[in-house]
Amino acid sequence: MTLIVQFQGRAALWPVWQTPLEAAFAEAGIDAALQFDADPATVDVIVYSPHQREIEDFAAYPRCRLVQSLWAGVERIVTNRTLTQPLCRMVDPGLTQGMVEYVAGHVLRAHLGIDAILAAQTGTWAPVIPPLAADRPVAVLGLGALGTACGQALAGLGFRVLGWSRTPKTVAGIDCHHGPEGLRAVLQEAQIVVTLLPATPDTETTLNAETLGWLPHGATLINPGRGTLIDDAALLAALDTGQIAQATLDVFRTEPLPPEHPYWAHPRVTVTPHIAADTRPGTASRVVVENIRRMLANEPLLHRVNRDAGY
Amino acid sequence: MTLIVQFQGRAALWPVWQTPLEAAFAEAGIDAALQFDADPATVDVIVYSPHQREIEDFAAYPRCRLVQSLWAGVERIVTNRTLTQPLCRMVDPGLTQGMVEYVAGHVLRAHLGIDAILAAQTGTWAPVIPPLAADRPVAVLGLGALGTACGQALAGLGFRVLGWSRTPKTVAGIDCHHGPEGLRAVLQEAQIVVTLLPATPDTETTLNAETLGWLPHGATLINPGRGTLIDDAALLAALDTGQIAQATLDVFRTEPLPPEHPYWAHPRVTVTPHIAADTRPGTASRVVVENIRRMLANEPLLHRVNRDAGY
Repeated sequence: MTLIVQFQGRAALWPVWQTPLEAAFAEAGIDAALQFDADPATVDVIVYSPHQREIEDFAAYPRCRLVQSLWAGVERIVTNRTLTQPLCRMVDPGLTQGMVEYVAGHVLRAHLGIDAILAAQTGTWAPVIPPLAADRPVAVLGLGALGTACGQALAGLGFRVLGWSRTPKTVAGIDCHHGPEGLRAVLQEAQIVVTLLPATPDTETTLNAETLGWLPHGATLINPGRGTLIDDAALLAALDTGQIAQATLDVFRTEPLPPEHPYWAHPRVTVTPHIAADTRPGTASRVVVENIRRMLANEPLLHRVNRDAGY
Repeated sequence: MTLIVQFQGRAALWPVWQTPLEAAFAEAGIDAALQFDADPATVDVIVYSPHQREIEDFAAYPRCRLVQSLWAGVERIVTNRTLTQPLCRMVDPGLTQGMVEYVAGHVLRAHLGIDAILAAQTGTWAPVIPPLAADRPVAVLGLGALGTACGQALAGLGFRVLGWSRTPKTVAGIDCHHGPEGLRAVLQEAQIVVTLLPATPDTETTLNAETLGWLPHGATLINPGRGTLIDDAALLAALDTGQIAQATLDVFRTEPLPPEHPYWAHPRVTVTPHIAADTRPGTASRVVVENIRRMLANEPLLHRVNRDAGY
């Protein structure tokens, strides 16, 4: 019997997800009808992206056996008391891989001096050979799933990678440090810093006037983590003195970053519009369909949310 | 007894090489006096970079037991009939590593659309998510030491790597093709092409009007190999139509590339001044000293030149 799958996301997302989801169903050999406006009484599974298309009453979906979020964070869903069906959050391998590609690309951009090369297309042949990556210390702040994957990719490219986390960790290929003393040791050596800490009260302004001052003069900062990790005023001051030679920032305290924010016009800042890591329909659709396959086979669901814990 | 080592390179190279060579001697525990102007009668080893400081008569160095070239190519040295001492060419692991870093950096630059990001610092928040590397086919033409190392590094970053060589080869992680048919198959799929073939009569203008036309419209070309691999007029025509969206070129038929050459001013071309792969004093000095250690220990020398074959 054909499974009825309701795509519960705003209209703009439907053309983005329809093709990869249908391809993933076909790949898995599951007979499913993916619909944007299914009759709630007929729906077997809800694929859910609540922004601008929230479900208030899940009781209207009596046949539904699975609510699969397209988001990693389910804080907006889990509080709905009408939701009695199993809820699963999205853990997308494409998101981690996208972050690795962004970080590797922008670290190599700094390492090779690509901005200067692009600015020097003037007809003057002036070779400058960069050091090898082994002689370029890169700090990765945060050794969770993303920091670990990025640090190991950089080590694989030959970089000397210094890792830092609040609590002690050991990661192959990364020179790991921890705690306040460790942060100073790591920053004092790093020519390039990548911030991949979570946003918590403890990580608020990890990079501030004091800690930015620990870096060697002319360091590069890459922040694809969270806007709150950085004291923006202190960073702008460090950019103005050249203490930080270049900053590439993907996340901000206010998004979209307002047009009048000084980061946009600063000659030493590259703004990227929160593109470093996104759920990718191709890989995420396979996760959705794998969970539906498990539901049909009565196997344990992936990333099922503990409703009491809230995640 | 202290070994007398003559640094036979032009004066500008002396400050570049003195420190890393002396560090490598210290590291190996070899008692050596590195000199820029040693008395030929006292010299035990010549470290040789002939450009602007060629030796005409090696008979003036009666004690010399090793001539260690700093160049991979020894065609200017091997023809000297007064040279009876063992001659070794340079094979520098730093050169391969530098090439890997250049290729990874410029492939990621194209993949992530970094040039467009740098041009879009206008205050408009307009997210564009690139595909994952797995969905970005990259062709590597040439599967020698450099092409293999670069292809494997790109595969390690997640790219789909198509390799091409004239004769059949098998390389882990690379989808290998060969011969004229294979070239067409590889180019028809590649969104980014990296050329790392040697300069031989057979590889002359491997990329010409016909083969550039096999690529998908809007492909990116990266040439850190040899200038002769490309038909320059055909490339300029393909850039003008947008068939090639961007070319990053490190090697040219005439170097330095003349200031009036159209590549310099072309908005779709990035010229880099033959910096992709250079002998690195740090790593190469260790190779020099290792060969001297072998000479002192009567062990077989590394990369010894066969004078009859000429390399």
